[in-house]
Amino acid sequence: MDLLSIDTLSDGQIAILLDAAQLFAERKGSSDRLAGRVVFNIFYENSTRTAMSFAMAAARLGAQTVTLSVEHSSVKKGETLADTALTLDAMRPDAIVMRHRDNGAPHEVARLVDCPVINAGDGTNEHPTQALLDALTLRQQFGSLAGKTIAIVGDIRHSRVARSNAKLLPRLGAAVRLAGPPRLLPDDLPGGGDIEQAIAGADAVMMLRVQRERMDDDLGDAPGEFLARYGLTEERLALAAPDAVVLHPGPMNRGVEIADSVADGPRSLIRRQVANGVAVRMAVLEMLLKASA
Amino acid sequence: MDLLSIDTLSDGQIAILLDAAQLFAERKGSSDRLAGRVVFNIFYENSTRTAMSFAMAAARLGAQTVTLSVEHSSVKKGETLADTALTLDAMRPDAIVMRHRDNGAPHEVARLVDCPVINAGDGTNEHPTQALLDALTLRQQFGSLAGKTIAIVGDIRHSRVARSNAKLLPRLGAAVRLAGPPRLLPDDLPGGGDIEQAIAGADAVMMLRVQRERMDDDLGDAPGEFLARYGLTEERLALAAPDAVVLHPGPMNRGVEIADSVADGPRSLIRRQVANGVAVRMAVLEMLLKASA
Amino acid sequence: MDLLSIDTLSDGQIAILLDAAQLFAERKGSSDRLAGRVVFNIFYENSTRTAMSFAMAAARLGAQTVTLSVEHSSVKKGETLADTALTLDAMRPDAIVMRHRDNGAPHEVARLVDCPVINAGDGTNEHPTQALLDALTLRQQFGSLAGKTIAIVGDIRHSRVARSNAKLLPRLGAAVRLAGPPRLLPDDLPGGGDIEQAIAGADAVMMLRVQRERMDDDLGDAPGEFLARYGLTEERLALAAPDAVVLHPGPMNRGVEIADSVADGPRSLIRRQVANGVAVRMAVLEMLLKASA
Repeated sequence: MDLLSIDTLSDGQIAILLDAAQLFAERKGSSDRLAGRVVFNIFYENSTRTAMSFAMAAARLGAQTVTLSVEHSSVKKGETLADTALTLDAMRPDAIVMRHRDNGAPHEVARLVDCPVINAGDGTNEHPTQALLDALTLRQQFGSLAGKTIAIVGDIRHSRVARSNAKLLPRLGAAVRLAGPPRLLPDDLPGGGDIEQAIAGADAVMMLRVQRERMDDDLGDAPGEFLARYGLTEERLALAAPDAVVLHPGPMNRGVEIADSVADGPRSLIRRQVANGVAVRMAVLEMLLKASA
Repeated sequence: MDLLSIDTLSDGQIAILLDAAQLFAERKGSSDRLAGRVVFNIFYENSTRTAMSFAMAAARLGAQTVTLSVEHSSVKKGETLADTALTLDAMRPDAIVMRHRDNGAPHEVARLVDCPVINAGDGTNEHPTQALLDALTLRQQFGSLAGKTIAIVGDIRHSRVARSNAKLLPRLGAAVRLAGPPRLLPDDLPGGGDIEQAIAGADAVMMLRVQRERMDDDLGDAPGEFLARYGLTEERLALAAPDAVVLHPGPMNRGVEIADSVADGPRSLIRRQVANGVAVRMAVLEMLLKASA
Repeated sequence: MDLLSIDTLSDGQIAILLDAAQLFAERKGSSDRLAGRVVFNIFYENSTRTAMSFAMAAARLGAQTVTLSVEHSSVKKGETLADTALTLDAMRPDAIVMRHRDNGAPHEVARLVDCPVINAGDGTNEHPTQALLDALTLRQQFGSLAGKTIAIVGDIRHSRVARSNAKLLPRLGAAVRLAGPPRLLPDDLPGGGDIEQAIAGADAVMMLRVQRERMDDDLGDAPGEFLARYGLTEERLALAAPDAVVLHPGPMNRGVEIADSVADGPRSLIRRQVANGVAVRMAVLEMLLKASA
């Protein structure tokens, strides 16, 4: 069993993962449930939080992590992704966690290898464990997502976080509104994607990271202008429901897509998202490794 | 006890290592035979498969690995290899695994430190664990190497893989034929080193990686021409014995030194080599660490 | 409880740490006292010995280390140090070991996070575990530091090693003399800082690393001239007490701040310092993690 996309999880599996993650989030300390297991962390793109979060999740379950970052990879020597996958698989890891700049790369690897593959973010496609941790965070806050409205705001076009959440949250009963700067919206977005309309009355606002190079290339704005035009200021957040909460997958560009006062304000669940990330990845690792044992 | 060269292994030690590795290759899962032990993985040259293979071998035995890649090293601050060795040794690791661009560097380290040193490849000199995994792979295929003929083809001049295999395989009863492009043969190679003569009737063909920069500098060939002139095509492989097998230490340059159809064909043992690599390194770590305990 | 500066350690804590480290230094092998614990090794500056020493100390206690080097960090994506700290903390590590180029960075992190923070060197400010290992090394040699005179020689102005030792050693009863090339002395150094006067009659000479870029910028000397003018030659060492010992935090510039014959001579305790470094970090990790458990 792999975790490549929200699409391949059944409703039952989603419920099991979120329940298991909730237990891990409540509990402190480590176990040795996965003692003797070895997880390969294969990151073709740099990452602080996701790579460390998976390593922490493995450690908390007693498993070891062997990390490959692309700087040390045979890719530079011209090896194909398929050959790298077959090579890694031949070492018989218990799971492969993979981030890659190309959409579908973990899927290609999963077709070739025997062990479970976990997509830790592929290009602009999906980032399923991020969506699961976002769902867990919202469920902790609201009890249930049924009937809740979640505004996802920012670079929708390029965001694997948005894509996975737009698949997962509706399955849990929430309505998702996508919005962002016009040039950062996908061509096929139904509705206009207006930011303030999306936030109006929403129960949660999930801001996405804007990449600085996109600001120059696609938007022509200086960072300060971006916040005023498209970012989450206190004024815009006031449009949301009275008890609305704020999410951000990190790392944040403070003063660009989110104002300091919002990021650090009482409605921000951003730190809890990070804590839940470890818990969700523990649940995912345990489910997949137990299934393949 | 160190593993620096095939030369320093007795016939008995070779037999013990191969038998132990065979058992590890047949078994799945981990043990805690080396629990509490710490292996230093010191790589002065980048490596995917060898570094990960040693880390996996250590993990499967319950040991921890602490990795130093040269980018993070005091070498950039001008420290000598001897001082680095003495510093590492003073931290009392249970073993040092070292890859270095200079011939003999692990030998220099081994003279200075108390713990076992394993040569994971030194310059153009030796790569003994690679030869051991190649021997294990061939032994699994043929039962015994006695009377078998192994053609090693490619950049013989610069290949530590060829050098270690040319020492090891004859001690197990095999005849080794070395061949390659004329400019990539050592000056003292007895016989002409003709590729097709070497392959003719051979029981195994071990292709070596060609470094792209050598193709330009030494050979003046485009990659496509290299395959036609010197690579392992199906036509050339047809010259070998009917049940001949194909090895490659990886990473492969597909379409350069080896045709896709050969690399992926039924005679290819390339994936099994990788699996055996972990098993051989488990056997080596266990032998050396038990000997020094 | 954190370890940010020598200042925040009580005399009792210093005694406990040195006694515990002495026991670890005498004993071989590993324990599982910190099994299930996870230490984050966060290095914003490259380091061989300190990063590996902490990783080894954690491993010897049965804890796992998750390493973040700055090349893989969100810092490049513009995240603030505070946000990185809060993110790391939300993953609930059992301790954060941090090296940073800015004075006070670990202190800022410690104010924000729940887990213990260990300063592994911050800018030109402090490197408390280095001072503790130096004190342990001197105590092993002399029994007690009471009444001993320690000359610290070199780039005093920029040295966090000197600063931490200048705080710690006097609390153990030693007199510290600071000396170095005139342009590498702090403005407020009482006394002239003359090298030969500092060494005269000293019981120990601690040479500091000179950064090559400083030699050019501040001193205008070629490496060879530096040794003659400011380095620890046998002639200068002969000015010290008859049983004087030599320390250096490493990595050494041989032939620059220290002559080969001194570095490798019978008075050199440089290797023992490295061994003691692991022991001191074991003691620090155990004290802080037990205190926070």
